[in-house]
Amino acid sequence: MDNRPIGVFDSGLGGLTAVRSLRQILPEENLIYFGDTARVPYGSRSRETLLKYARQDVRFLRSYDLKAIVIACGTVSTTSLSTLQAENDLPIVGVVEPTCSRAVKVTNNKKVGLIATLASVRSGAYEAKIAELDKDVSVFTEACPLFVPLVESGRIRRGDVVIETVAREYLEPMKERGIDTLILGCTHYPLIAPIIGDIMGPDVTLVSAGEESAFELKRMLKAQDLRADENRQGDADFYVSDRVEDFERIASLFLQEDLRHAARRVDIEKY
Amino acid sequence: MDNRPIGVFDSGLGGLTAVRSLRQILPEENLIYFGDTARVPYGSRSRETLLKYARQDVRFLRSYDLKAIVIACGTVSTTSLSTLQAENDLPIVGVVEPTCSRAVKVTNNKKVGLIATLASVRSGAYEAKIAELDKDVSVFTEACPLFVPLVESGRIRRGDVVIETVAREYLEPMKERGIDTLILGCTHYPLIAPIIGDIMGPDVTLVSAGEESAFELKRMLKAQDLRADENRQGDADFYVSDRVEDFERIASLFLQEDLRHAARRVDIEKY
Repeated sequence: MDNRPIGVFDSGLGGLTAVRSLRQILPEENLIYFGDTARVPYGSRSRETLLKYARQDVRFLRSYDLKAIVIACGTVSTTSLSTLQAENDLPIVGVVEPTCSRAVKVTNNKKVGLIATLASVRSGAYEAKIAELDKDVSVFTEACPLFVPLVESGRIRRGDVVIETVAREYLEPMKERGIDTLILGCTHYPLIAPIIGDIMGPDVTLVSAGEESAFELKRMLKAQDLRADENRQGDADFYVSDRVEDFERIASLFLQEDLRHAARRVDIEKY
Repeated sequence: MDNRPIGVFDSGLGGLTAVRSLRQILPEENLIYFGDTARVPYGSRSRETLLKYARQDVRFLRSYDLKAIVIACGTVSTTSLSTLQAENDLPIVGVVEPTCSRAVKVTNNKKVGLIATLASVRSGAYEAKIAELDKDVSVFTEACPLFVPLVESGRIRRGDVVIETVAREYLEPMKERGIDTLILGCTHYPLIAPIIGDIMGPDVTLVSAGEESAFELKRMLKAQDLRADENRQGDADFYVSDRVEDFERIASLFLQEDLRHAARRVDIEKY
């Protein structure tokens, strides 16, 4: 039994959907979240810059006595996971590998779709990982650059003509390809999963990146005997690198809780 | 007469609408454009970081023998204009001052609206400048965070339900306030001026930031006898700090020209 907290980081606040999944799947664990809101988005940065940022994010989180780290950021998972794992003596879970494993497991017709940001689609990371796991699976990708700003503007409800029109345009080509599994490859997309599900229909299984990381972490903690006391209720602390004023509104949106959360600011350049 | 080029910079490619205005208003001038696409958006950076970035942008542009500089970026105009003017021995024009002067001139009922990004609205720069020019003018502001991503996704046509729904929601409160002048305080907004005009109606005058900077620069060049030979056709060169591959599509969108443009990449951190 180990009640030390788990660190979670992302380029911004989208990673709070991973916090939401972790709270559902591992409710007894303490979490420390860091969102690098001053340097968001990571998607367009060079590999060297990304590794520098990711190392700073990890160093800040490790100023606490952690037992594990979840990288909620797809871009960091793609570019820097193995380096961070080699440099740190604690379990680190990314988002890409667990998500691809799940997609390969659930597809029957071996046709998997991936929707993500332009940067994630361009990285080819999901396709490479799926090819490594099962070379017979075809992956169809679609970049959905408007989903993040629309979700952050709170346009996440069924019946909203704006999100529904945009979603239909992005998803119709996926449907035509006959996929039976769709990876939601961005932290923001679980919030519009009901709308995506309506468009794709009941025969397409949705796989959310954040959720799969939480399951992977649960397995890892169990295997290494690192789980917290299951009778307790875990807590969460939140840190951001830019102004904290917007945090409450956005956090409520992503965590889907009525709770009011406060965040503290960190000067991440010092780490 | 002075045929040396004019430098123009912005945090990204939105400043190309200023290039478009400059080409219409000063067609004989040569332009050198720099878009800091690797470090966009500037809106959320600290003042120190912004000044550092702006100095690098100016240093890069001044590696050419320029006669003037236009800052197409609202955030830099707001935070760093006077410092840059003090440090450089050539005319530098921002976007905020010329735009506010124009708005104060055209309003009859002294009710002016401002639409812009969240960062520009929060800065209070337009309100402060207008109050300085005419303290009887009331300014009503509305942040429109979805306009930039929608424009960059090419959703700029009348009849598009997505842009029209979003625009109506942002602009209805402005209309209810009875403004007679609306400042388009972001480089991207001129591209949807027809849609904004439809919603606001014929009695509201639209004032575009980029266009007013071009008029201001024209006056300045004339006063200092720096204008180019009016019988020539000016040229434009384009530089960006991130990948050049997207430039062609976006440039055609912003410049509203069928011409194909190529951009070269600059390592801006070296300046």
